[in-house]
Amino acid sequence: MSGKVRVTIAHIAKEAGVSAPTVSKVINGRPEVAPETRRRVERLLHEHGYTRRAAGPDGSAGLIDLVFAELESPWAMELVRGVESVAGEAGASVVITVLHSHAEPGRDWLDRLAARRTDGVILVGSRLSSRQYGQLGARSIPFVVVDPEGEPPGDASSVGATNWHGGLAATRHLLDLGHRRIGMITGPAGMLCSRARVDGYRAALETMGVEVDPALIRQGDFLVGSGREQGHALLSLDDPPTGIFGGSDLQAFGVLEAARRLGLRVPDDLSVVGFDDLPLARSAWPPLTTVHQPLQEMAALAARMVLGVSGGDTREPRRVELATDLVVRESTSAPRT
Amino acid sequence: MSGKVRVTIAHIAKEAGVSAPTVSKVINGRPEVAPETRRRVERLLHEHGYTRRAAGPDGSAGLIDLVFAELESPWAMELVRGVESVAGEAGASVVITVLHSHAEPGRDWLDRLAARRTDGVILVGSRLSSRQYGQLGARSIPFVVVDPEGEPPGDASSVGATNWHGGLAATRHLLDLGHRRIGMITGPAGMLCSRARVDGYRAALETMGVEVDPALIRQGDFLVGSGREQGHALLSLDDPPTGIFGGSDLQAFGVLEAARRLGLRVPDDLSVVGFDDLPLARSAWPPLTTVHQPLQEMAALAARMVLGVSGGDTREPRRVELATDLVVRESTSAPRT
Repeated sequence: MSGKVRVTIAHIAKEAGVSAPTVSKVINGRPEVAPETRRRVERLLHEHGYTRRAAGPDGSAGLIDLVFAELESPWAMELVRGVESVAGEAGASVVITVLHSHAEPGRDWLDRLAARRTDGVILVGSRLSSRQYGQLGARSIPFVVVDPEGEPPGDASSVGATNWHGGLAATRHLLDLGHRRIGMITGPAGMLCSRARVDGYRAALETMGVEVDPALIRQGDFLVGSGREQGHALLSLDDPPTGIFGGSDLQAFGVLEAARRLGLRVPDDLSVVGFDDLPLARSAWPPLTTVHQPLQEMAALAARMVLGVSGGDTREPRRVELATDLVVRESTSAPRT
Repeated sequence: MSGKVRVTIAHIAKEAGVSAPTVSKVINGRPEVAPETRRRVERLLHEHGYTRRAAGPDGSAGLIDLVFAELESPWAMELVRGVESVAGEAGASVVITVLHSHAEPGRDWLDRLAARRTDGVILVGSRLSSRQYGQLGARSIPFVVVDPEGEPPGDASSVGATNWHGGLAATRHLLDLGHRRIGMITGPAGMLCSRARVDGYRAALETMGVEVDPALIRQGDFLVGSGREQGHALLSLDDPPTGIFGGSDLQAFGVLEAARRLGLRVPDDLSVVGFDDLPLARSAWPPLTTVHQPLQEMAALAARMVLGVSGGDTREPRRVELATDLVVRESTSAPRT
């Protein structure tokens, strides 16, 4: 895929000992090829860095594939909007696939993807098997991972936000206001973006000489319900926190609910900080202090990368982290003395 | 599309005086056909009720096209989730196209749609030109209109909610609590779903013998900002309302903000009712009394209709309205006496 001499289908066919139409079928995701033949052809395509000819009437299929693990949060909508803004300008549409409980897309998905000649794939919080990554590579379908859940393969480009720094900024804000008992609700275990926010939280506390109390760190899933439950649990401790870093805006909304149910006023009795800065954060009551994550920009950059436009060249794998910013609104203040 | 004898491409080609490959090119949205030839072939396809053969390896392209006018509200996300739930079960993906300021999709869009052999099209709050509707029909691409903005063509199927009844129920709830000065914020002028909600509001007032005061009806755009502005305007009247029907949840959130800025407590000083019952309505403060609109179910039904599965047959055009329900939470109470 880098600067190699362009290999032809005929060449691959000869080396694989199959016909040229068989190689085409593998490239285009047609099913009528025996599994081991398919694997042999895919390996050769990959080794030779075969570059697919441009498809469609004007050289583009006009499709960007966007794959989500889940589609439950308004957070996902911001990413869809960001990808769509770039796709729309290019006259393209966005194909959404949701994996739900499946860890990775099924075999059919990759064949269909190839058959419809997608312009490229953006993976959000989901992962492919190393075999599927290889298949994308073999068909020279560009792909970018957004907000990777685990480690994307070494040759994959990815776009994220400065989660560690965001966690640091959120916690420092509470420390600067005078809070010392600061709770944190994390995202799902194993999600790198959550891990980075927690590490930022720890770093803020430790650099201020405040001991990290494991009882104040509780695991959530980034959704409202876990904010409500874990917020309630934190506020029910014998020595409850005076400030809570919600880990996500939705969890912070849940903490606001939990506080109200316990008769606590925000920010007088409890300060709450979110993470994401969803459009609804400013309409919360009180308006939520939160870490702005440039979700639309992240998704737009990923889309430009897969389309190979305006500086989004994917020939060299890149890891890009866009900056987060603390947005101070009305859900935080100094603790009662 | 009804019970006609199946016409072949050869037949259409002969009648149009062109070659069979030319007819195929028109059906598949390829560009290299002269405009007037294309129109002639499309007319004949339509007249003869040509039915496209199933496409793709297993007889399906595995794509449902979902076209939005805008993608700004979490409301849109609920529809995406509903379509995706049905598509996902069928192993299909959802293609999202957003028109933004364009009144209708461009010419390219329809060609691309045909080229990628979509399983069907769902239009949300957007409309096609009568020519585009004709082109979909000519290519026998099933389509369903969700929450139609204007009148869909006579032979189109559509899915909506009982907006009139929802407006009636929201307003009756406030009347039953004892409110008589009831404000309403509408959606964009010309949107049928908004018009129906306003008519339901009027009907509730008039059947209770309460005069409709035009000063209490203000136009919004269904988003938070217009709720904030129009809510502020209503609450600044010399004789302000004691209850406001927000027209949408987002507008109701805006009214909650406006009330707080004016130092009014909800529901003690002002009752607020939304419309939609977005997932965040229960996390609002106070939790929002609202009219539940079954957005996911509406979208899922539309998806089943275009796929022609589980009772969603589109051979006969159908207009379906799913029921709305009032959900009473904590943002409404009797007015102060």
